[in-house]
Amino acid sequence: MDFAPDARTAGLTAQVRAFLHERVLPAEPVLDAQLAATPDTWSFRPVVSDLRAAAREQGLWNLFLPDGPAGRHGAGLTNLQYAPLAELTGWSPRLAPVALNCAAPDTGNMELLAHFGTPEQQERWLEPLLDARIRSAFCMTEPDVASSDATQIGTRIRRDGDDLVISGRKWWSTGAMNPDAALLIVMGKTDPDAPRHRQQSMVLVPRDTPGVTVVRPLTVFGYDDRDHGGHAEITFDDVRVPAAHLLGGAGEGFAVAQARLGPGRIHHCMRALGMAERALALAGERARGRVAFGRPLAEQGVVREWVATARIEVEALRLLVLKTAWLMDTVGNRAAMTEIQAIKIAVPRAVQSILDRVMQLFGAAGLSGDQPLAEMFAAARALRLADGPDEVHLRALGRAELHP
Amino acid sequence: MDFAPDARTAGLTAQVRAFLHERVLPAEPVLDAQLAATPDTWSFRPVVSDLRAAAREQGLWNLFLPDGPAGRHGAGLTNLQYAPLAELTGWSPRLAPVALNCAAPDTGNMELLAHFGTPEQQERWLEPLLDARIRSAFCMTEPDVASSDATQIGTRIRRDGDDLVISGRKWWSTGAMNPDAALLIVMGKTDPDAPRHRQQSMVLVPRDTPGVTVVRPLTVFGYDDRDHGGHAEITFDDVRVPAAHLLGGAGEGFAVAQARLGPGRIHHCMRALGMAERALALAGERARGRVAFGRPLAEQGVVREWVATARIEVEALRLLVLKTAWLMDTVGNRAAMTEIQAIKIAVPRAVQSILDRVMQLFGAAGLSGDQPLAEMFAAARALRLADGPDEVHLRALGRAELHP
Amino acid sequence: MDFAPDARTAGLTAQVRAFLHERVLPAEPVLDAQLAATPDTWSFRPVVSDLRAAAREQGLWNLFLPDGPAGRHGAGLTNLQYAPLAELTGWSPRLAPVALNCAAPDTGNMELLAHFGTPEQQERWLEPLLDARIRSAFCMTEPDVASSDATQIGTRIRRDGDDLVISGRKWWSTGAMNPDAALLIVMGKTDPDAPRHRQQSMVLVPRDTPGVTVVRPLTVFGYDDRDHGGHAEITFDDVRVPAAHLLGGAGEGFAVAQARLGPGRIHHCMRALGMAERALALAGERARGRVAFGRPLAEQGVVREWVATARIEVEALRLLVLKTAWLMDTVGNRAAMTEIQAIKIAVPRAVQSILDRVMQLFGAAGLSGDQPLAEMFAAARALRLADGPDEVHLRALGRAELHP
Amino acid sequence: MDFAPDARTAGLTAQVRAFLHERVLPAEPVLDAQLAATPDTWSFRPVVSDLRAAAREQGLWNLFLPDGPAGRHGAGLTNLQYAPLAELTGWSPRLAPVALNCAAPDTGNMELLAHFGTPEQQERWLEPLLDARIRSAFCMTEPDVASSDATQIGTRIRRDGDDLVISGRKWWSTGAMNPDAALLIVMGKTDPDAPRHRQQSMVLVPRDTPGVTVVRPLTVFGYDDRDHGGHAEITFDDVRVPAAHLLGGAGEGFAVAQARLGPGRIHHCMRALGMAERALALAGERARGRVAFGRPLAEQGVVREWVATARIEVEALRLLVLKTAWLMDTVGNRAAMTEIQAIKIAVPRAVQSILDRVMQLFGAAGLSGDQPLAEMFAAARALRLADGPDEVHLRALGRAELHP
Repeated sequence: MDFAPDARTAGLTAQVRAFLHERVLPAEPVLDAQLAATPDTWSFRPVVSDLRAAAREQGLWNLFLPDGPAGRHGAGLTNLQYAPLAELTGWSPRLAPVALNCAAPDTGNMELLAHFGTPEQQERWLEPLLDARIRSAFCMTEPDVASSDATQIGTRIRRDGDDLVISGRKWWSTGAMNPDAALLIVMGKTDPDAPRHRQQSMVLVPRDTPGVTVVRPLTVFGYDDRDHGGHAEITFDDVRVPAAHLLGGAGEGFAVAQARLGPGRIHHCMRALGMAERALALAGERARGRVAFGRPLAEQGVVREWVATARIEVEALRLLVLKTAWLMDTVGNRAAMTEIQAIKIAVPRAVQSILDRVMQLFGAAGLSGDQPLAEMFAAARALRLADGPDEVHLRALGRAELHP
Repeated sequence: MDFAPDARTAGLTAQVRAFLHERVLPAEPVLDAQLAATPDTWSFRPVVSDLRAAAREQGLWNLFLPDGPAGRHGAGLTNLQYAPLAELTGWSPRLAPVALNCAAPDTGNMELLAHFGTPEQQERWLEPLLDARIRSAFCMTEPDVASSDATQIGTRIRRDGDDLVISGRKWWSTGAMNPDAALLIVMGKTDPDAPRHRQQSMVLVPRDTPGVTVVRPLTVFGYDDRDHGGHAEITFDDVRVPAAHLLGGAGEGFAVAQARLGPGRIHHCMRALGMAERALALAGERARGRVAFGRPLAEQGVVREWVATARIEVEALRLLVLKTAWLMDTVGNRAAMTEIQAIKIAVPRAVQSILDRVMQLFGAAGLSGDQPLAEMFAAARALRLADGPDEVHLRALGRAELHP
Repeated sequence: MDFAPDARTAGLTAQVRAFLHERVLPAEPVLDAQLAATPDTWSFRPVVSDLRAAAREQGLWNLFLPDGPAGRHGAGLTNLQYAPLAELTGWSPRLAPVALNCAAPDTGNMELLAHFGTPEQQERWLEPLLDARIRSAFCMTEPDVASSDATQIGTRIRRDGDDLVISGRKWWSTGAMNPDAALLIVMGKTDPDAPRHRQQSMVLVPRDTPGVTVVRPLTVFGYDDRDHGGHAEITFDDVRVPAAHLLGGAGEGFAVAQARLGPGRIHHCMRALGMAERALALAGERARGRVAFGRPLAEQGVVREWVATARIEVEALRLLVLKTAWLMDTVGNRAAMTEIQAIKIAVPRAVQSILDRVMQLFGAAGLSGDQPLAEMFAAARALRLADGPDEVHLRALGRAELHP
Repeated sequence: MDFAPDARTAGLTAQVRAFLHERVLPAEPVLDAQLAATPDTWSFRPVVSDLRAAAREQGLWNLFLPDGPAGRHGAGLTNLQYAPLAELTGWSPRLAPVALNCAAPDTGNMELLAHFGTPEQQERWLEPLLDARIRSAFCMTEPDVASSDATQIGTRIRRDGDDLVISGRKWWSTGAMNPDAALLIVMGKTDPDAPRHRQQSMVLVPRDTPGVTVVRPLTVFGYDDRDHGGHAEITFDDVRVPAAHLLGGAGEGFAVAQARLGPGRIHHCMRALGMAERALALAGERARGRVAFGRPLAEQGVVREWVATARIEVEALRLLVLKTAWLMDTVGNRAAMTEIQAIKIAVPRAVQSILDRVMQLFGAAGLSGDQPLAEMFAAARALRLADGPDEVHLRALGRAELHP
């Protein structure tokens, strides 16, 4: 057992940290100004392109992609190696992930294309995604059912000659308000009579296919997340695509979706820990600088207890996420299922609670757009529902524990 | 000891409940549509005027005002009698309080004018406020200091002949983005060398006085609260008003502000409990209608525990708020200080936690504008900072307990 | 609605408070000394008799018994009137309840005899219990089943001519190690084929009946509660009593048990709140007197927050218990079921948590016999299981809330 | 970074686990019977000798001692290697640690003697302790002061010619009721005028020195821990020992005490996690076997959530303890101070909470001596005060975080 990072990880961590502090954090007010100047668009603002150019130049690009023969597509890092880099991007969730082309949902979609895509699919979609020329969305959740139970999915994909015809309603398709999101990956049922986990398939749908209607944006608390493409409700009315657009074979939809979840959760959790670290750094500044009742907040016992408790939570949970990454790398995603569920439950809860406490330290400023805390809070809160609510995972984890 | 409401309270409660269910809740989608159609305004939308007309017709108007010789200005209810009515308005926080002319900050401002205003001040400002012809804002909090410590206030009010000249920066002036907010009540220091709680004064400033600049709106978790006038940052640059605009005498500012807090906290807490009740009603509907893993959520033990715990919290805290109202009515606001602090701390925390759990029950819909939960959550969260952060009150309450 | 106590309650409260401070608290070290001197007995120690004599002289006797035509047996107080008196006895749980002849399980047993007993049963058992000449035990819980589910009860009571023959195993029969516990009230099944809640009957069993074996004492944490008779495991091997020993009729056992629960829970909860008040009083003394890192604990923010939070919890929960008592008095135990469940769940949890925090304030002394905290903690913890675990009540309460 | 244990650790872990399940757990009822048969003694019971003989035979002896040139005294394991073995001993806290001669406070005392002892001191005390021929106690805490603040220590050690003369009162001297505890290590002030952390010295006091009086045993939640020697209050009245009995030099007492804390906390925390694991194993058995309301507890959502949450806590905290051990091994105890404080705070809290929940699952049996839960609870609760209350460590940790 050894808790020291390897040399490549240590080097990349230092490099990404420097990029964060020198390039990304100073770009945050630039983004705010560009957003204020262009209230009616859902595309990336110019500052993103600038950061991307800088990141590519430094080789900080597609670090998330662990996969492939010697890292053909990505940087070839293991989950364990990528984890601390993902954490650093969580310090600036609106900018750092996109700057490094490591932002959800594109990361998960690229992983799927890299694992399950045909050469034709990879050429058409994966290449431009790796190159950040297009974006993509993942259309899974539906408004009418508990989507965490895949058997309830209502979207239908029927075969008609050489075509597939898709009908259904999806929502929370993150990024899909962005007109650059040229690819929609859609989960639906191809065979409702098949065994429980063989009913679903996944299909690649170009955004401009007739029958695709982006109905409206959704908000998370009061945020529309317009900087990166928001969250869309989309209807599919007899949307027709060639059968070659199937990703991973008919009946493989559930398995494909599962493959996407493991790394996605590691990434989410590490970014969430990065948000917590940013919040703690801000808390320190605030507590040292703010005086109440004659003493700086940093010298008041209640604040010290808050901060100490938060520090402990972050340290313990980071280790659990890293161990999970290591398990995925060494025994595989399936064998790491319990740990993946554990971090999916525990990290967002803890980070939400930490952000809540740090907001309290900032007073009303903490709730406003003058600090990143409230928006991070909304993001952490949403993670407790993304990929299934906590309760679904607690139930599964508890069952596994009780029936060893 | 008797836990039954008196006849007048019971009657008004039934009347307000009927008004809520028959008029206010059905008006919520109307408000949403009007907001979507007029994204650039901060005034009340037409639906508010309709509801107000209906409420006045039913005599449901200015119920909050306990004060005066035989209720000259208001309805003459005690705090204890008004409390359950305030709770009901919390079910629809954007519409019900304004419909009944019982919305903060106007309520607190009207109380101040009724208690401390000269006849001229009352005629000029109180009458149109009671009549809902104008709105008002309360300018207390400042961005640069811990405003819960009144000695830190930076705004200066200096005497210059028969005038007062005000200089300073305020923020979180709720409602002040609304152009109808004709009156600003501003707290500042008239004598920084006076004893700690005699340094401050309060002054009435017409919005259109030269030197008043509404700088920008602030957001709470992404919400700009544009329906009622938002929250403004305002600068006062050598703003000159006649000395007769002082409210309550020079050096009385702290005492005046304190007078405002007691009833305001009762109102806030009762409305917050109303939000919790609305959330629990929604939780019941959702849990009965939503099936996961083969059973309605309402039959799942975890949901039952959540809901039971929430019910207990609401019942216990409501009694504490009611007792506090009774103490204010019988022994006065000062003698009820401990209880006022207690509810200020406990109620928003509990309601925030309940809303968090109910959001979880709704899945991602709970975070969105499709349900009132996330916006209520933001409001409850903000209450933990309004009128001073929890920590200030815990500190005072703990000291009182330890030094009886 | 009125939160002031009536005159009789106020008078008795003052009287019991004086008795507590002047007689009971000074008797605690006397009890400790008598316990240390007589390690092998389970009877009351002499100090109890002294206190009882003093209490009777002052008319502070059998205050718990709300019942009867003009208070024939007891003091004729309502639940609401008795509640604050019960709270005061919680300050000294080993002495105050027995001093006033208001100690469980005798109180509940006396209530049953007063409600359901025949004149013969009342003469033989109720009179000496009211007079404190004997004690009694309640034999309900069984080691082999989840006793909160009455249908699982394994003890059998079969009719044999004019006799009843009882076979089974009970445990947690509080007080039954005390040789003065002359009466055992035993719950068993008379008709396992009857409808769910008509299978059980309750029977009065003299302790010295052949076949009754007190097997062993049980401990709660490390306490054997030897001062009042401990908690016994008892076997009943073909124990034969006359059929006239049935209490309340065959098949009435479940209903009789339910009748016992409502007042019992009020009593338990109020005493628990009294334990919390005692703990807070001790916390104040400790915090004012103990210096750490240069300042008394009472001036440290963390301690103030603890204490403030505890104060709020106690105030809110006391009101909920009082309202529950009022409901029992005005609409009856059945209509107050939801509130009875609510306090049963909420009060012991809160009191356990408060005691835990106050123990922390006392350092290791708080865990020891030098302070009453650890023993009170054990008692509060046990209440979360007495009369059914929290989870059973949360489940029922949540179901009622979700299916109104 | 690598989360796999090395080969020696894996081997020893398997060996200790087998010893635990084959020898130690079956010996628990034997210990209970021997305790019941000898209520008046504080020495080890015969079952301990049997287990010790078996452990020595298997080489499972003094595993805790990481120290020395090639493990001269102990097994030569690092903290990281010993940690999982300590965890396993926590499954049976009354028997497993003593069986392997790895029980506090002897472990810490042996470490001190190994690090700071003169050859003569080692020969006289360390050899028989390593050989389990004697026991020892550590006399640090005092009843009259907050002992976590070393400057408050009241015991005085004055030089008189070639002797030291000790006067003071200590309590919570664990193991000191055991007549085999031949050595008392006593902390006192040699120079109250020296700098803050140079005032204290530590001295070796044979138990039979005139002036040493073991006053009384203390209890923890009613437990006297008589199986291993309890917790004593001891007075030192002009106790005279040769100056050569100083351990580590005059003025070195604070530094010596600090050296003892790091490994001690690792051991405590790992054993506490072992208690949690035992509790979870018991919870599984109970939940699978116990039926309530028609279904085994293991199939009820509330139980699953409990258990899942507990599993996550244990996994995350174990990693934090292991990382702390690794830091102590690689950068030293001083550099690992923050992490040592973190685990000292977090682990006992979490384990207490887990034990509380598992007790709830067992109903009243969980509170009794029929299950090990309540006694483990008392032990975990005591850890939150041992070596200083949580609050002291939270304060220090928060300060370090806020002033990096």
